[in-house]
Amino acid sequence: MRYSQLFAHTNKSAKQQDSVNATLLTKAGFIYQTMAGVYTFLPLGLRVLNKIENIIRGEMDKLGSELLMTTLSPKENWQTTGRLDSVDVLMKAVPANDAAQARHNGEYIINPTHEDLITPIAQRFKPSYKDFPFAVYQIQTKFRNEPRAKSGLLRGREFRMKDLYSFHTSEADLKPFYEKVKESYKAIFNKLGLGKDTVVAVASGGDFTKEYSHEFQTICETGEDTIYIDEENNMVYNKEVAPADTSSMKEVKACEVGNLFPLGTRFPDAFDYKFVDAEGNRQPIYMASYGLGSSRVMGVLVEKFHDDKGIIWPETVAPFKVHLISIRVSGDKIYKTLQAHNIEVLYDDREDVSPGQKFGDADLIGIPWRVVVSAKTGEQIEVKHRTQEESHLTDFASFLKEL
Amino acid sequence: MRYSQLFAHTNKSAKQQDSVNATLLTKAGFIYQTMAGVYTFLPLGLRVLNKIENIIRGEMDKLGSELLMTTLSPKENWQTTGRLDSVDVLMKAVPANDAAQARHNGEYIINPTHEDLITPIAQRFKPSYKDFPFAVYQIQTKFRNEPRAKSGLLRGREFRMKDLYSFHTSEADLKPFYEKVKESYKAIFNKLGLGKDTVVAVASGGDFTKEYSHEFQTICETGEDTIYIDEENNMVYNKEVAPADTSSMKEVKACEVGNLFPLGTRFPDAFDYKFVDAEGNRQPIYMASYGLGSSRVMGVLVEKFHDDKGIIWPETVAPFKVHLISIRVSGDKIYKTLQAHNIEVLYDDREDVSPGQKFGDADLIGIPWRVVVSAKTGEQIEVKHRTQEESHLTDFASFLKEL
Repeated sequence: MRYSQLFAHTNKSAKQQDSVNATLLTKAGFIYQTMAGVYTFLPLGLRVLNKIENIIRGEMDKLGSELLMTTLSPKENWQTTGRLDSVDVLMKAVPANDAAQARHNGEYIINPTHEDLITPIAQRFKPSYKDFPFAVYQIQTKFRNEPRAKSGLLRGREFRMKDLYSFHTSEADLKPFYEKVKESYKAIFNKLGLGKDTVVAVASGGDFTKEYSHEFQTICETGEDTIYIDEENNMVYNKEVAPADTSSMKEVKACEVGNLFPLGTRFPDAFDYKFVDAEGNRQPIYMASYGLGSSRVMGVLVEKFHDDKGIIWPETVAPFKVHLISIRVSGDKIYKTLQAHNIEVLYDDREDVSPGQKFGDADLIGIPWRVVVSAKTGEQIEVKHRTQEESHLTDFASFLKEL
Repeated sequence: MRYSQLFAHTNKSAKQQDSVNATLLTKAGFIYQTMAGVYTFLPLGLRVLNKIENIIRGEMDKLGSELLMTTLSPKENWQTTGRLDSVDVLMKAVPANDAAQARHNGEYIINPTHEDLITPIAQRFKPSYKDFPFAVYQIQTKFRNEPRAKSGLLRGREFRMKDLYSFHTSEADLKPFYEKVKESYKAIFNKLGLGKDTVVAVASGGDFTKEYSHEFQTICETGEDTIYIDEENNMVYNKEVAPADTSSMKEVKACEVGNLFPLGTRFPDAFDYKFVDAEGNRQPIYMASYGLGSSRVMGVLVEKFHDDKGIIWPETVAPFKVHLISIRVSGDKIYKTLQAHNIEVLYDDREDVSPGQKFGDADLIGIPWRVVVSAKTGEQIEVKHRTQEESHLTDFASFLKEL
């Protein structure tokens, strides 16, 4: 894509915000803050979000089918599960003005999570023991009544999330699937470049379950959570459930990027959803839900991977693979050649901008490979990886191999 | 994909609903009604929706950049444009219970359209005449305070939509782009199989503009709109703006699948968004918005393309290209061969279901090509197109050519 056709562009003078990810993603033209905790994904940001979500989708497709549930739901679903009055992040949609009120005075829940929705859907399609186990997931926008929306994409009122739900005829059947999801999450965070800094912590079940849950926590100085790492016993605890004596453990800040909730029979029971066993008897159904915040992951990636010049995207989620800069010569030929090789390229074709500004923007945006063509480079190209200090001259064929 | 792993399945005994699309899409397992006008897209339905949206995306990418705006917005944006109190489809998000109210008592508009959002974003990035013209689009879930949500996917409280916005330095510059979008829409509806029955009608500007707008209307007996076709003068009018004497025109029912609003300077003016011309003077900006309802299109396709046995999907949007049915022999080999040829195939691998039920489900689901393997077919396959009455025996290589 040509930079001149990108719609949004960098804005180095944008003011510092309360977090590195909000500041850098705004300056580099990835996101636009509509209000606290609510961000528009500009073209560059949407490309990164799509790549993150496609990595997640690739792993989830091995576990279950993708569907797309609704944002609105009737209050009845939440009454049935007992969460209508108790969940303090719950919002509802009501008419916004007198004209709307006169037109139609309905009230609908705006879903922050979908256990209360997927359970009756599963009940509709999966009555028999022969149908079990099964799992479904979606990737969707979620909403929370958040008092302190802050830290850019780390804590939003509106955010993107993958949620997977699995249903089982027994706890014994649930357990191995639950472990399989953990392995799937590890594969996802490895692909996202967060594998080595992401740990699985024991945590409380919150609004979901009285049992312990599990959180994928990425160690990150600016994270909101405190976790304790017990290296001796190979255990990690969220502060809220850590054993009394944590003095022998390492205390670190972390950001929750995924969670796993063993829900027991709570939600199926609430809807009187039982399976019919081989003898024709109705039996309780065991359920678990598994969240992974795709927009939050985008924020965490920036918190982890940046320097004083800008963002440093992992190759798997970078908006483009190559950032092509032309200096006083046309880069059109190399641009077309890169495209012909199916290499995603952002081409800074601006003519009224100094080389220094183009280099600065490239560092800020954080695409892995910077390629420069100028009078100086002749038939060659000047190549630099975002993580390297020095550039080198090379010919196109060698660069292709390097990629 | 194996039918047994599809999560949702057909349900022929599902009750008749108020429209053909709601009835057939529900019976065939494409959608699940969460409440009036609010539908979950089950795996088959999500596949169709994605195909429709990717066809739209392919054309839109020629006109502008894709971004993803927010569902929530601050009231201020709507106060600025004067639409906060006047738009009667407007809903707002408020805390859903006392606990939520105590936690955070905010109110946010739930966007039914995004002129009020995109204008300040454009203002942030596009100040100079050198930046014009430009266009951006998104594909996103929208919300309307709808009193009579009905007709399945034709009129929803929550629905999917593509919205494109273009900005110009003059009406003269806007006009050719506006015509270009019309051509783009024609290309989209052709690809969707709706081209020959879709006309461009003159309509009122509604909440958007005092000028006339244009609607893409698909002629459809069950459509909510009435349009008048003036064949002599090659004009089409929505009833609301039709000339007084319509007796010489053909009156038909139609369903609005797209619209184009020439908005003049209204929205940029409201935000005091002007461009700076070559002489340094601030000048008014002309804007237009262009909607296309992707989930409604899915409903219209079913209204148009079905018979008494079920849905007949156009090949471009069908959830799969081939519906493979095995009868008392394994279809695994042909299933894997089709996949190896990158042919999207739904494989009805169920063993506890009669051939008659499998054939009935195939007709109901409406995938273009039905392929049967059985003891009778031997090394050959039995092929039938959904639009044909008769099947024929053929070998795999010939079938590949037929595809």
